[in-house]
Amino acid sequence: MGKNLTKRSEDYSKWYNELVVKADMAENSGVRGCMVIKPYGFAIWEKMQAQLDKMFKETGHENAYFPLFIPKSYLSKEASHVEGFAKECAVVTHYRLKNAEDGSGIIVDEDAKLEEELIVRPTSETIIWDTYRKWIQSYRDLPLLINQWANVVRWEMRTRLFLRTAEFLWQEGHTAHATKQEAIEEAETILNIYATFAEEHMAVPVIQGTKTESERFAGAVETYCIEALMQDGKALQAGTSHFLGQNFAKAFDVKFANKEGVQEHVWATSWGVSTRLMGALVMTHSDDNGLVLPPTLAPIQVVIVPIYKGIEQLDEIAETVDPLVKELRAKGISVKFDKRDTHKPGFKFNEYELKGVPIRLAIGQRDLQNGTYEVARRDTLSKETVAASEVVDRIEFLLQDIQKNIFEKARTYRDEHITRVDSYEEFKKVLKNKGGFISAHWDGTTETEDRIKEETKATIRCIPIDAEEEEGECIISGKPSSRRVLFAKAY
Amino acid sequence: MGKNLTKRSEDYSKWYNELVVKADMAENSGVRGCMVIKPYGFAIWEKMQAQLDKMFKETGHENAYFPLFIPKSYLSKEASHVEGFAKECAVVTHYRLKNAEDGSGIIVDEDAKLEEELIVRPTSETIIWDTYRKWIQSYRDLPLLINQWANVVRWEMRTRLFLRTAEFLWQEGHTAHATKQEAIEEAETILNIYATFAEEHMAVPVIQGTKTESERFAGAVETYCIEALMQDGKALQAGTSHFLGQNFAKAFDVKFANKEGVQEHVWATSWGVSTRLMGALVMTHSDDNGLVLPPTLAPIQVVIVPIYKGIEQLDEIAETVDPLVKELRAKGISVKFDKRDTHKPGFKFNEYELKGVPIRLAIGQRDLQNGTYEVARRDTLSKETVAASEVVDRIEFLLQDIQKNIFEKARTYRDEHITRVDSYEEFKKVLKNKGGFISAHWDGTTETEDRIKEETKATIRCIPIDAEEEEGECIISGKPSSRRVLFAKAY
Ligand SMILES: [Zn+2]
Ligand SMILES: [Zn+2]
Repeated sequence: MGKNLTKRSEDYSKWYNELVVKADMAENSGVRGCMVIKPYGFAIWEKMQAQLDKMFKETGHENAYFPLFIPKSYLSKEASHVEGFAKECAVVTHYRLKNAEDGSGIIVDEDAKLEEELIVRPTSETIIWDTYRKWIQSYRDLPLLINQWANVVRWEMRTRLFLRTAEFLWQEGHTAHATKQEAIEEAETILNIYATFAEEHMAVPVIQGTKTESERFAGAVETYCIEALMQDGKALQAGTSHFLGQNFAKAFDVKFANKEGVQEHVWATSWGVSTRLMGALVMTHSDDNGLVLPPTLAPIQVVIVPIYKGIEQLDEIAETVDPLVKELRAKGISVKFDKRDTHKPGFKFNEYELKGVPIRLAIGQRDLQNGTYEVARRDTLSKETVAASEVVDRIEFLLQDIQKNIFEKARTYRDEHITRVDSYEEFKKVLKNKGGFISAHWDGTTETEDRIKEETKATIRCIPIDAEEEEGECIISGKPSSRRVLFAKAY
Repeated sequence: MGKNLTKRSEDYSKWYNELVVKADMAENSGVRGCMVIKPYGFAIWEKMQAQLDKMFKETGHENAYFPLFIPKSYLSKEASHVEGFAKECAVVTHYRLKNAEDGSGIIVDEDAKLEEELIVRPTSETIIWDTYRKWIQSYRDLPLLINQWANVVRWEMRTRLFLRTAEFLWQEGHTAHATKQEAIEEAETILNIYATFAEEHMAVPVIQGTKTESERFAGAVETYCIEALMQDGKALQAGTSHFLGQNFAKAFDVKFANKEGVQEHVWATSWGVSTRLMGALVMTHSDDNGLVLPPTLAPIQVVIVPIYKGIEQLDEIAETVDPLVKELRAKGISVKFDKRDTHKPGFKFNEYELKGVPIRLAIGQRDLQNGTYEVARRDTLSKETVAASEVVDRIEFLLQDIQKNIFEKARTYRDEHITRVDSYEEFKKVLKNKGGFISAHWDGTTETEDRIKEETKATIRCIPIDAEEEEGECIISGKPSSRRVLFAKAY
């Protein structure tokens, strides 16, 4: 396995694409815009899923499953929602193929045309709210806190592995509440879960904020988001949580009898994170040698590579290593002892570096004699010699230290790339030369936002939740503004 | 919650449909043939998934994810495969909707017609083998042991919740091997996993066998299956494992260099179980009072219902119950203490009976004074009084005993419904009056099989793997036969 990875400084985008493929995370399929998630990539996604699922369940959510298909008429019921999703969807029009009469192969059977076209779900608000109408009658049926793990399809024209694919995997939560306040609190609770997950598990620092009107989810009253910063200075929206007001309840006529017996429309939220997180994970930590994975999400946390000649030496090494493997596994640490004799140690070192395994142990004849291991950490690429008697403790320490270190490193980079500017000239200069988030005053109008986007390709990523009140003037219009917002070019 | 459940003896089919809906497992959606799996039903499915996933991983399989869509031309590459799946599939022909010019709503945008239609996967052999061509070059790349959890679509005309739905959830394993023998062993290993899962976790006794040529999977050389018997005497195919020979490797040109450097086509298997298992679970154990769930798959294993007047009595009960709940949870037992004051105990008793909760504890003032609980088991509907000091032990015993008891009950029923017949007259009589499996000699021809199917609707469910050699004569043609096969009407 030669790495031959393009350097980030040469071509960041090419580096990313190569890395995702070479590290066996995913690849393009024969179906335009649809990816294959390979076992190593999927194992990371499974760990993300397990952790998020646990957090959702701990906060009272249950999983369910709703249909893949959405009748065209459902999509149309919420006006801004259909505007947002009709333009890029997969449309099922027929339900049968048949043999062509001229023997040229199989063709669509025109006799099997659907009366109403079905859309492959781009998101499930409509089909779910059509269902909730049957489930909700009284305040006793509320809140309804449901999540779904599913595949969705949005017909993107330009796609990139994990970051933008026609089909992707995600979770979508859809909750129903008796009051506006409770729904807003739910949207905020989920935003907190997303931020905690990103920072503590993915080791990706995020900024919590709300979207401007033009960047809001189609059908939402308020969109909360977490925004991360990639190593090329571009932002990536890592998760969104929407307060939907009563929009979908009104579109699908979902009412409940309150405690006084009065009929009211239900309040709603929806929220999701997707396999896009995989892209954020790769782009935040990895380097020119390959993936760098946070220990909490690494499918293999520790790999042990024996250095030997002949089966006898390998057997000797195994006598020392086998009990270590057992001990580490008993502590819940995932270990691989790579005894393959088809590949040389150097090849294996490269491979595990490329795949981002956090800790690599090597053990040869001299180590065996000295009672030591060579311990290498992936994040810093540093090596040390550790006594066999202390290696378990050292591994436990390193797993935590690596998790902490890559988070700190990413946070430092992110913090250094939030630049306050007070003029449009400065704005353009920083965007061009430094990138990252630009903190500036904005007059609150879509007009200004659109002009900046057209002229610079930067968008307002969010209005940070913890932004301080500060009197200022919009960098474009000079009109008064009471807080700064964050601009950036984004994925 | 009034049960008002139709009795099995009145209308088995109606009983099933009502039960699935009333027990909050699933319901029909607004999309023809697609179901909504409700949280309670989905929680059971999640437990099934977790156990199966564990068994797959323990035997060396990894999960991955392949595209939802299959280009029409892929489906055509394996001749018998396309015959089997082209007739009932969802076809995506367009990728955009637009506003109708006459303002009548949104319509398909004819400018956005796909050059090649995409089929929503009915199963993934074709897209996966198109991918494996890139992954397999050498014997070192084999075996490839991959599983996928996914949704699939088959456009069934008559659908029933869980048993036959247009969209369903399943796992599909797809493996590649260097030798025929190894592929056959893989197919058999998986059949064993399915049988173990069905019997030990679902408590559903199954017969392992192989399918006749006409019942084989489209593209398989051999289809192994597990067959269960429902309480109405009809069989249900609960899982299949296919030895695919080199059919897909040839159709997609997947070759490997063997140890001698010679190019050979790869050997394959595929195997799957689906949400259909949910139907088998319901129909095997449940009764006229509702669901009966095996403790291993029950989302709630123990429910505790307090019987009280006023908050003071409830508080007193909680003082006793709270530590019990803690103790049970520490043992990994899932417990619900239902303190809702919006519903009476009788209502709750009915609800948990309907939902198949294996053990119900009730505790009122007298129990509190006596230091006892009333313990009811769902399978036998029997009650006993148990001292609080012994209740944990009793619960642990009962969870095992219920699991064992419902399996034994189902196995006794199944065994009593395997009838050996030696003439077609007898065959028809047993089929009409008793149902179940009919063990009979068959001459091995599709002609005979078809005639029996046409005349009686019974099909050959399987050639049992453990069938004894026995000289006999086909009940239709009188031709010689060397072993009996199992016939039944089936779901
Ligand atoms: Zn309304
Ligand atoms: Zn070939």
